[in-house]
Amino acid sequence: MTQALRAVLFDVFGTLLDVHSVAQRADTIFPGLGMRLSLLWRDKQIEYSRVRTLSRRYALFSEVTRDALWFAADALALPLNDATCDALMNEYAHLSPFADARPALTRWQERGTLLGVLSNGDSEMLARALRSAAIDEFFSHVLSADAVQSYKTTAAVYQLGPDRLGMPAARVLFVSSNGWDAAGAKWFGYPSFWVNRNAAPRERLGTAYDGTGRDLGAAADYFFANSME
Amino acid sequence: MTQALRAVLFDVFGTLLDVHSVAQRADTIFPGLGMRLSLLWRDKQIEYSRVRTLSRRYALFSEVTRDALWFAADALALPLNDATCDALMNEYAHLSPFADARPALTRWQERGTLLGVLSNGDSEMLARALRSAAIDEFFSHVLSADAVQSYKTTAAVYQLGPDRLGMPAARVLFVSSNGWDAAGAKWFGYPSFWVNRNAAPRERLGTAYDGTGRDLGAAADYFFANSME
Repeated sequence: MTQALRAVLFDVFGTLLDVHSVAQRADTIFPGLGMRLSLLWRDKQIEYSRVRTLSRRYALFSEVTRDALWFAADALALPLNDATCDALMNEYAHLSPFADARPALTRWQERGTLLGVLSNGDSEMLARALRSAAIDEFFSHVLSADAVQSYKTTAAVYQLGPDRLGMPAARVLFVSSNGWDAAGAKWFGYPSFWVNRNAAPRERLGTAYDGTGRDLGAAADYFFANSME
Repeated sequence: MTQALRAVLFDVFGTLLDVHSVAQRADTIFPGLGMRLSLLWRDKQIEYSRVRTLSRRYALFSEVTRDALWFAADALALPLNDATCDALMNEYAHLSPFADARPALTRWQERGTLLGVLSNGDSEMLARALRSAAIDEFFSHVLSADAVQSYKTTAAVYQLGPDRLGMPAARVLFVSSNGWDAAGAKWFGYPSFWVNRNAAPRERLGTAYDGTGRDLGAAADYFFANSME
């Protein structure tokens, strides 16, 4: 670190909120296949967000997410209909926060750290999910990719951080559980922390994270060790 | 079709050449896990090409492919080393053509149709793979994403077609087995044919292909039915 950290930006889906908590609900609809559906849904959601951005065919993240669910159901030959689609989409708006989220966020809050989120999720989806998880109170800035009509890892999305927080990216720790997102943020200019909950292998993208750890508590430790002038 | 077709551009990896033929070789190195490694390797290769393009961090496709192999081996806890990595990369340069490729290409050739390929593969990788598969003779144009330092589905890559073929995209049938590639080409302005060999579900990207079929022969049928003025 060459500059002291002053603020934190978090990814939301997969980092603060557990996207696979929807698997339990899916399993009540499609017994035994909930986790497979959930994993495929998530992969496809990310894929569609990237392909649409590359082709400049932006659609709202909620729409992309719905499209991905239909594909995932098709791929597993599951008989999705409008009602079960709505039920699963609704579950996506009520994801569980990870157990380590609130304790870590509280530590930052007690020190008066400026906290925000920067997500692919559209503003409405994002506000609803954070409120439902009861962690909205921690964030002064809720930044959505829909402001720039493109998705991570484009510079336009990451640029929302310095623009809205009013400080250079070099002062903002970017925290994500998605290795590719942490890499994208690092490329852009943020110091970057990868929360690697499941001991996943590191992405081979030719860039190094500034820090890694098993949970958001480790990200807080890293932040406080690097926030003194 | 509003305009008669005059030329064909093919995707290469997965469309003319079977990327999973490498699974057999992988299986001799990592018995029982060759197919899983091959599938994960391929997914990661595509993912890295997209993320690097979104972040404007282009690297040659052969490098991206090598990075993806290391990740895939890590993810499956397989003890890859430089020698086995080289052996698998070398296999990637000697992929088998699909059985339907040569007969279909011969039909076009006999009619004097202008044929080219448009691939993410870098020029050297592409030339070697087409030569090894003994189908290089069919193509007057071998177009590589490395000319524009970005990957599909950006417009810059698809623009190579009209630029190098000297005709509007509307006159060129774009043929790909990758649904997202056929969708990207369609968005760009090509009439687009999706070769769906494995009865995969269609991508939910809000666009329709002009034609779909089980093999390259079906693509040829479509072309000849739409190539008369």
